[in-house]
This record gives sequence, structure tokens and C-alpha cells, in this order.
Amino acid sequence: MSEDPSFGPPVGGAAPMVIVNGEAGGTLPTSDRGLYYGDGLFETVAVHNGRPEFWDRHMARLREGCTRLGLPCVDVDALARETEVLCKRAGVRKGVARGVLKIIISRGSGGRGYRTPETVHPTRMVSLHPWPEIPEGNLAGGVRVRLCDLRLGHQPALAGIKHLNRLESVLARREWDDPDIAEGLLCDGDGLVVAGTMSNLFLVKGGRLRTPDLSRCGVAGIIRAVVREIAETRGIPFEVADIPVAEARESQELFLTNSVIGIWPVREFDGKAYAVGPVTRELMEDLERRRALETA
Amino acid sequence: MSEDPSFGPPVGGAAPMVIVNGEAGGTLPTSDRGLYYGDGLFETVAVHNGRPEFWDRHMARLREGCTRLGLPCVDVDALARETEVLCKRAGVRKGVARGVLKIIISRGSGGRGYRTPETVHPTRMVSLHPWPEIPEGNLAGGVRVRLCDLRLGHQPALAGIKHLNRLESVLARREWDDPDIAEGLLCDGDGLVVAGTMSNLFLVKGGRLRTPDLSRCGVAGIIRAVVREIAETRGIPFEVADIPVAEARESQELFLTNSVIGIWPVREFDGKAYAVGPVTRELMEDLERRRALETA
Repeated sequence: MSEDPSFGPPVGGAAPMVIVNGEAGGTLPTSDRGLYYGDGLFETVAVHNGRPEFWDRHMARLREGCTRLGLPCVDVDALARETEVLCKRAGVRKGVARGVLKIIISRGSGGRGYRTPETVHPTRMVSLHPWPEIPEGNLAGGVRVRLCDLRLGHQPALAGIKHLNRLESVLARREWDDPDIAEGLLCDGDGLVVAGTMSNLFLVKGGRLRTPDLSRCGVAGIIRAVVREIAETRGIPFEVADIPVAEARESQELFLTNSVIGIWPVREFDGKAYAVGPVTRELMEDLERRRALETA
Repeated sequence: MSEDPSFGPPVGGAAPMVIVNGEAGGTLPTSDRGLYYGDGLFETVAVHNGRPEFWDRHMARLREGCTRLGLPCVDVDALARETEVLCKRAGVRKGVARGVLKIIISRGSGGRGYRTPETVHPTRMVSLHPWPEIPEGNLAGGVRVRLCDLRLGHQPALAGIKHLNRLESVLARREWDDPDIAEGLLCDGDGLVVAGTMSNLFLVKGGRLRTPDLSRCGVAGIIRAVVREIAETRGIPFEVADIPVAEARESQELFLTNSVIGIWPVREFDGKAYAVGPVTRELMEDLERRRALETA
């Protein structure tokens, strides 16, 4: 699950780096169904060297989300053009800087109440945000993680896609203030661990890599898919599984993924300490290589 | 559960009848957390004779929602003033016309990703919409209702309040096109009936009035609470219960409630016919009397 760790004002200061339906600095109609009902999708894309990372994968997830919500096919070419414009304007160019791109596609305005309009004019919104300040130690030494009280509800109709109904994550993130705790893990009502508030979870036990099944809740992250591919390439046994939280605790290695952070090893979960293990290191190295290739 | 049956352009034509943070015709910042995450609440209020119906109850639900989401207390006085301004401007005055008021309170902009800002500047949005065209027969003869395939997920942290994460209702409403079917009923994963996509459900069996428990999902409607009070005043046995959908089917009377429609008797549910029974009629008459008193 990728998520924007930073939401100060968009890059660009006085002239906000936002393009709404092709119009720079546009505003959002107050009747947008994205606001009314969370009727839409989003993507958070890391930008480096003036280029978005794993663009095709983000676009594929967005397309799948559109299909699942019954939204018209997203105009990927327009998104690519607008992303380029924002990157150029912000100076996020080759070798210069990094940024975080946020894309929102909503069902636009119209319809009667929840009923969707016969002809949909989606809202397409692209904004560029500063790269967040992430403590160096998060990568090298790992992060501290807690278990959230909130349980994720099951909704197979929405599971996997990155839709705009994110109150569960917002409420879960409100459970702690300690700046030294980087993430909170969430279980579902059955006590199976699903994900972090803004990340996917992996665990390693006996040399096997496992990640929670996301068919009932959670967001299927882009980096999660890349890590899976790396594991397959390297011959690391991998499975998607139902994982009770006790099993996650007993792992030898734990790590988190999202599109901005890449991989964060977990060094402490609910008071238990973990080493940054060999499988995590191997995957981190390969992932950073892949990310660099994406924007070379 | 009240819901806006109408979303054509707001009343007022060229000059939209929307007030955002006290500013008429204001626009919404593209960074609003209401759009990003559905991080907020709404209310749909019937307006008649230039006055909102059950205002104190809507404000009480909004306040409860703010508490549950950790939002600052809503400025009820400002909402009341802005509602009056909109009603006057639209000519929804005593004896003149009816309208539907939509109120949105979001957590505004700011914070880092899902993390909420330390100081919240909520967005307060009020808009006035035309009264929907509702077929006369819906009140007198009742409506046709179907059972939706989508199951509502359990989320006690959000159950009861009217938050902006409404994709379940949007997807459920997309399940049918037949204009003769007025509403779809939703079960949870356990096969218990919860509500309609935009309404609460009541059933009558053996002279007893029952409505689904909403502690795990659903929205606790204003009219639902009023109907409960009427039942208690009239000595009609009433209970909030877990209701398997088969039990709903076997009822003698079924009806739906929301803030705009009031009470709609159900004349057909999934092919089975129902009469508009004596308990429903009694409640309808009392409710209409109460609504009239609200805006007299």
C-alpha cells in the first residue's frame, strides 16, 4: 500500500502544483462525488530524476480500480502529460530532486444521490508534493511498529484497490502520537493481520516470505507486487496467506513496503525486537536497483 | 438513513447555492481531506416553509460524528445562519417551496498522509438542492424494493454516523437500473438485513415494530429515531434487533425511512407483495404531523 507520507502544500509554493482536468491550479467543484461519497480512486507515485517510478503498474492498478467501480477507463496519456508538466515545473528533473505525485480519479459531479450519472465526466487531478523527510535510520536499522486497536472491516467489493474511502486508515493513524513509532499494523475482525495504515506487510520465517491475503480488505501495493517478483526471480519461497497476528510476531524478519518508502525493515513490533535479516536485505538491495532502473 | 435523492445543480441556477466556510459560491481546495480520504461527515436535511426539519437532531448526529472521528466541535450557529441565507436566496420561504439541504463537514487540509493535522481547520460546506421529483404513488401505494448482492462490511468504529465513505452505497445502487425499483436492501456478511442504500428499514410482525441493529454498519437515520419515538408514544411494541433477511421477507408490513422521503411503505420486496398495513399508516400520519410542526 503506497501512501503520501507528506502533505505540506504541494511543490511550487505560491503557484500550487495541481492540475485538475488539464487545467493548472484548477479548483474542485463542490459537488464532486469524490468529496460527497469518496467515489473514486487515487495513486501515490514516487518521482525521481523527473520520472515516475513503476508508472505502468500504477496505471494498471488505476485501470483495475476503474473497472471495479464502474468508472470510465482512465485517460492514461493525459495523466502522463500532466505528470511531465508538473515535474518540469517543479524542477524534479534528471538528477535534481525527488517528489511524490498524487493522482485522484473521481466520478465527477452528477447522478441522483448515490445513483451514478448515466454519462460520467470523471475528475482527473494530479498534484506534486515534496519528498517527505524520512529518518535515515528507517532504512538501515528498521522502524518501530505498533498493533492498532481498530480492526479492518471485510469488503471484498473494494479490497485491493486504492479507493477514496480511507477513514479506517485515518482513524487507525490517530491511535498513536509517538514520533518514534513509524507505523501501526491492522488486523481484521478475525485477528488476521492485513497491513499497516499506509503500507503492506511481509514476514520471513524459515526462509519463506509471506504476505497477507488482501481479498477481503487492504490495498494491493505496487511495491508489494514488485517484491513478490523479486522473490520469485531469486527463488525465495513466497506465499500469500491468512496470517494470524501471533504468527507475524513469531517471524524472524518483518518488513513494510510502500511506493515512497520502498522497504522499511521492522526492528520492533509491539515491544518485540527483530534484526534486519538477510532476506530483507537481499530484497531491499534488489528493490533499490529496480527503482533506480525505473528512473535512470 | 437520510440521503439526497436529487443531485441536479444546486438551487439557484447560474449562481450556485453553495457556501463554503462562510463564503458564498466558494470552491473547495483540491487538498481537502474530504476528497483525499472521505475524512468527514454529511447531513441531508429536508427544508420546508423556509425552515429545516429536525434541525436539532441533525446537529446532534453531526456532533456525535465529530466526536467519533476526532473532529473539532462543529459550528452549529454558523451552519444555521448559512442555511437561513440559502433558504432566503432560493425562495424556499414560508409557504413557498421545499428544498434539500446538504451539509458537509470535513477535516479540511493538512496532516501527513493519513495522519491528521495537529490543528484542524475543518471545511464547512452547505448547499441547497431542488426537492426531488418523487412519484405520488410511493407514499400512498408503497414502493418496489430489491435485495442487493453487495454485503455491508462490519466497522463498529464508523457504524451509525453519516461519514463520507459511501462507496458501498454507490456500488449497491449500481446493481439495478429499473426506474420502478425505488430502493435496494443490504445485508451484512452474516445475512442480517441492515438498511436500504439510502434509507433505514422497519418491519411489522404480530403488531411489533422492529428495525435492524446498526452497531456494526449502517447509518442511524433521523427519521428512524423519530419513528421510534412515535411508536413509544403510541405504545407500539418496538425493538432494535438482528434481523435475518428471511425474517424481513416474512413480515406483515415493511417500510423505509429517510429525511427527505419520510416513510415509504414497501409494496413488493424481491417479488413478494405487501399491503400498506395499519401500523405503517399510523406511523406515517404521525410522522407527517411532526414534520409539519417542525416547519410550521
